[in-house]
Amino acid sequence: MATVVSLEGKRKAPSLEPLLSLCAEDMARVDREIVARMRSPIALIPELANHLVGAGGKRMRPLLTVAAARLCGYDADDDRHVKLATCVEFIHSATLLHDDVVDVSALRRGKPTANSVWGDKASVLVGDFLFTRSFELMVDVGSLEILRILCNASSTIAEGEVLQLVTQRDISTPEATYLEVIKAKTARLFAAASEVGAMVAGCKPAERVALESFGMNLGIAFQLVDDALDYAGREAKLGKTVGDDFREGKITLPVILSFLRGRAVEREFWKRTIEKLDQQPGDLEQAQGLIERHNAVSDTFERARHYGAMARDALGLFADTPLKAAMLEAVDFAIDRAH
Amino acid sequence: MATVVSLEGKRKAPSLEPLLSLCAEDMARVDREIVARMRSPIALIPELANHLVGAGGKRMRPLLTVAAARLCGYDADDDRHVKLATCVEFIHSATLLHDDVVDVSALRRGKPTANSVWGDKASVLVGDFLFTRSFELMVDVGSLEILRILCNASSTIAEGEVLQLVTQRDISTPEATYLEVIKAKTARLFAAASEVGAMVAGCKPAERVALESFGMNLGIAFQLVDDALDYAGREAKLGKTVGDDFREGKITLPVILSFLRGRAVEREFWKRTIEKLDQQPGDLEQAQGLIERHNAVSDTFERARHYGAMARDALGLFADTPLKAAMLEAVDFAIDRAH
Repeated sequence: MATVVSLEGKRKAPSLEPLLSLCAEDMARVDREIVARMRSPIALIPELANHLVGAGGKRMRPLLTVAAARLCGYDADDDRHVKLATCVEFIHSATLLHDDVVDVSALRRGKPTANSVWGDKASVLVGDFLFTRSFELMVDVGSLEILRILCNASSTIAEGEVLQLVTQRDISTPEATYLEVIKAKTARLFAAASEVGAMVAGCKPAERVALESFGMNLGIAFQLVDDALDYAGREAKLGKTVGDDFREGKITLPVILSFLRGRAVEREFWKRTIEKLDQQPGDLEQAQGLIERHNAVSDTFERARHYGAMARDALGLFADTPLKAAMLEAVDFAIDRAH
Repeated sequence: MATVVSLEGKRKAPSLEPLLSLCAEDMARVDREIVARMRSPIALIPELANHLVGAGGKRMRPLLTVAAARLCGYDADDDRHVKLATCVEFIHSATLLHDDVVDVSALRRGKPTANSVWGDKASVLVGDFLFTRSFELMVDVGSLEILRILCNASSTIAEGEVLQLVTQRDISTPEATYLEVIKAKTARLFAAASEVGAMVAGCKPAERVALESFGMNLGIAFQLVDDALDYAGREAKLGKTVGDDFREGKITLPVILSFLRGRAVEREFWKRTIEKLDQQPGDLEQAQGLIERHNAVSDTFERARHYGAMARDALGLFADTPLKAAMLEAVDFAIDRAH
């Protein structure tokens, strides 16, 4: 996996472009479906929803759905895969709207969050609206088996959000609990997104299992990298506020590892800043220093590579096609995106 | 309809008891299903959910579902009607949790609201959890037609909540817009609750339409009375804080009618207190006085009786049975409950 672009330009940084370009037509239909399904006579709904859904974002999750469907040979002359992809993006968007309210976030993807523009109330309610629209989309597709998977994923996300709220600021959260949270909060929807793509294509059972595993491991890797970048990334490039997790006292792997590996005085620092949220100017820089000293960011990337490798191997049973190569490169991109 | 218990005791106040007693066995199963479906390894979820769902409340909506199913001759040896009733109660509960956050309410049914005990964040997320559980329940029942109706109702509720947020504090909201809001927010779920009860019983198309209309009209009447009681009821009896709507600047029919019927100086009063939310001690009492002067509460009850009459007539095609009589009495109870 290329993490560095050499001066000779021999190794290219992995990119999402090949996958986006192979799925361009499907994704354009997803865009149109998103706009159509956000419609409402109440102007605030499309206005607020569009602020989040319409702009920015790589649409990783719906991309997974259409890619999985195509990888499994989907060639029906209908739009079930487009509807499912839209459904997945709406579940994700509803979660983000509620997340930003719960986390009191001001910036997302470099833009003011919906709650900071329209207030918490509107964000909660439009989130509910997108949630219900996502269920309408699933019902439209008409498969009870697919409904079950997506419902279950939504339920797990909600449970994961509560688990995160409960463990928030408990600095002694074990890595296993953290993993449980990111599986529930993020990876489960990645897994469902690609599994239902496979299913709508009428795939074989083994392909379905493979794509579910691909999505799950990619999702874990994706979130690990996200959490690493919150301490390591550069603001402009990420379009997110570096240090958000620190300021919110969120327990992520870089902090867990630094706490476990730190001396007593360092542990006191983490207890004060994360558990008690008693933070002073310079604390974020000190946190970054401790994380650097204990290789906590680089080891978080290392963990991400482990899951990335499993995601890649999950596709082993599929024939080598440009689409498969693009999906494998998407895994590398998820891990390397900020380098 | 009996609104007064005479000294001779000739006319009894209408009660929900006959319906509750005829449906007691089904409702006991609904209670058990509710408890089972709130379970989660994350203790906060059943704890918070149980605070709202477990205690108090008349369970009007699930009662409608099982009553409609039985009225249509449901006699299957399974629990589909119980699952649908539970689903309806979960949709309602999720909405209440989010409502109380949006409205910053401190009391519901005479108890502290979940948000005032566990905070807004937990209420938003556990609301999401109940929402997703409600969808799992629908999927379990396995009818795409029923799924479509309940999804659509959920979507309409969410849209109605946003509409209410947008019209909030606009004192010139027309009665028609207010009606649209309460149809979306309340009546639509009543309608869906009884319609899906009929459907799960394998009813005839005309019966389905009849029960949908019964639920819709009952729901409108129910909400009209709720809004009237907010200015007229006595706190202890209602278990809700009288004057809540006024303090929140909510536009309900008593206020709309008083504004329309009032002189210029009265309209100034409503603009100050509702639109600008500039309220002083004694303002609630003055509002109640103006509402009394213009018969705005009694005319709101009058409107409720109109919809109640339509609900009663909707059941016309069903044979006269004790169950039907109990459902008709439930309509009277919904209107007369605080007298």
